[in-house]
Amino acid sequence: MNVIRIENADDARIDEFRSIRERDLVGRHGRFIAEGTVVLRMLAVAHKRGGEFLAEKILILENRLAGVADILADFPAEVPIYVADSAVLDGIVGFHLHRGILAVGKRVRDVQASELLALLPDRALVAAAIGISNHDNIGSIFRNAAAFGVSAVLLDESCCDPLYRKSLRVSVGAVLQVPYARGGTTLELVSGLFENGFSVWGLSPAGRTEIRKVQPQPRMALLTGSEGNGLPSALMEKIETASIAQAPGLDSLNAATATGIALYQIASAQGGI
Amino acid sequence: MNVIRIENADDARIDEFRSIRERDLVGRHGRFIAEGTVVLRMLAVAHKRGGEFLAEKILILENRLAGVADILADFPAEVPIYVADSAVLDGIVGFHLHRGILAVGKRVRDVQASELLALLPDRALVAAAIGISNHDNIGSIFRNAAAFGVSAVLLDESCCDPLYRKSLRVSVGAVLQVPYARGGTTLELVSGLFENGFSVWGLSPAGRTEIRKVQPQPRMALLTGSEGNGLPSALMEKIETASIAQAPGLDSLNAATATGIALYQIASAQGGI
Repeated sequence: MNVIRIENADDARIDEFRSIRERDLVGRHGRFIAEGTVVLRMLAVAHKRGGEFLAEKILILENRLAGVADILADFPAEVPIYVADSAVLDGIVGFHLHRGILAVGKRVRDVQASELLALLPDRALVAAAIGISNHDNIGSIFRNAAAFGVSAVLLDESCCDPLYRKSLRVSVGAVLQVPYARGGTTLELVSGLFENGFSVWGLSPAGRTEIRKVQPQPRMALLTGSEGNGLPSALMEKIETASIAQAPGLDSLNAATATGIALYQIASAQGGI
Repeated sequence: MNVIRIENADDARIDEFRSIRERDLVGRHGRFIAEGTVVLRMLAVAHKRGGEFLAEKILILENRLAGVADILADFPAEVPIYVADSAVLDGIVGFHLHRGILAVGKRVRDVQASELLALLPDRALVAAAIGISNHDNIGSIFRNAAAFGVSAVLLDESCCDPLYRKSLRVSVGAVLQVPYARGGTTLELVSGLFENGFSVWGLSPAGRTEIRKVQPQPRMALLTGSEGNGLPSALMEKIETASIAQAPGLDSLNAATATGIALYQIASAQGGI
C-alpha cells in the first residue's frame, strides 16, 4: 500500500478534499467523494471491475488505518492513501469529520440510457426517476434498487446527481454498483423503454392499478416522480400507472419508500426475489 | 387571529425559537418545534383534538402570512402568531430559514404503553421500534405507520425522541397524529404486547418467515431494530420473525424503508388497506 503522511492541511496533494461541503455545492466535474467504510468498499469493487468508476486517492484518519486495512488492500498500489491526524484532517475538509474515511473517485465514462438498455437481459426490472432533486431520495432509490435486484436505474435530466456526497452515502454505495444513465428528457427516457420492449409503470397516488395487482411481464420499468409534483399528467396517460394502497384519506409515503415498496412488489411478481 | 409583529431578534416573547439548532441538542423539556406548513397543519389538528399536544406560539415570516392564513385560522385565538421580516427571523433562529414557518408545541401528557394498548380495537396493527436512535428513521417510521393505518407506535427507552425537530419534519407531522408511547425496556414493551393478545413479529434479515408468507392475525405488532445492530438475538428467540426477500448476497434495506414494506404487507394481509 502506498501510504503517505500529510503533516499540513495546505498540502496540495489532497486539494480535492479541501472544504468538501462548499465543493459539494459547485460540482466536481465527474469527480465524487466517497465517505465511510461501506462506500469505500463499494468503490474498491467498482474500481476493480474497471467500468465507469475509478478511485483516484484516499484520505484517512491515521488511527483508522489499521481498522480498514482489508478494504485498502483491495485498491491497486497506484491509488495513494494519504493519512493525517484529526486536526490536519479537519483543517482540510473544513469541519469535524467523525468517520475519518474519504476517497476521491471519478466517473470516467458517461453511459447513455440506450446503451444500458441494449445490454439488459430478457427478464429485467428498471427503476426510473423523473425530476427527483432531493439527494436523500436519489440515494435511497439506488439503495432500494440494489436490494431488489434492479438491472439499471435511469434518471432524466432533471434529476440531481447521484454521485453527490450525501446521495452516495445514503445509497450505501449502490450508486457505484447498479448501472445507471442520467440525462435526456422524460419523453426520451420513456421512448427508449418502449423501444426495448418494457412494460412501463408510473408510480402515483392516482395510479389506476393497485401495485399488488400489477401483472408481471418479463421486462418492466417503474417510474417515480418528485415528491412535490409527482409524474406529469401527460405522461400518466401514455403509460400504465400503479398506486400503493394507504389508510383512508392519506397520501403520505415518501417517494423513495414508495419506490422501495413498488420495486419489492414487482420484483416479487417477476420472480426476481 | 392574534398577530404580533416582532421588530427585534432579542424580543423575549419569542425566546423558545432562539438558536433552535443548539436547542435541538440540549432538549426542550416536553416542548418541540414544528416546522413548515405540513407539520403546522398537523399541529392545528392535534391542538383541536385536545389530547397530548398543545400549540403554544407561532412564528412566521411576514410575507408567508397570507399564504398560510387558512392553517392559522385553525388555531384558537389564544395562540399568539408572531411575524417578523427575514433578517429578524434569521437573527432569532440562528440561520437562514427558507420556509419561514415555525411553531412551538408541547406534549402535555406522556402516555404509557399499557394505557395505549388497552384502548386499541380488536383488529389492530402496532409498529414498535427498539433502539432506533436515528432521527430520520424514527420520523420515517411514523410516516409509514400513518400511511398504513397503524393504530399505535411503541418506542422503547433506547429510541430517540420523535418530537425532535428533524424527526417531526421527516414524519410530515405523523408524530402528532399516530398515538405513541415511549419508554420502558424492550422486555416490558414485548410483554405488554403479549398480554394484550398481539402476535409479535420481529423484522430482521435473519427472520424465519418471508414477510409475504406471514399469516394475518387480528392483533399484530411489528418490531424494528436499529440499522446497525438489529433486534437483540435473545428477543428474536421469543417472538416470530420475518424477513424481506432481497437480491442474492444483499442485506441493504434502510430500517425505515424495511418497516414501510413490512407494514404494507401486514396491513394488506389483515385487510386494513
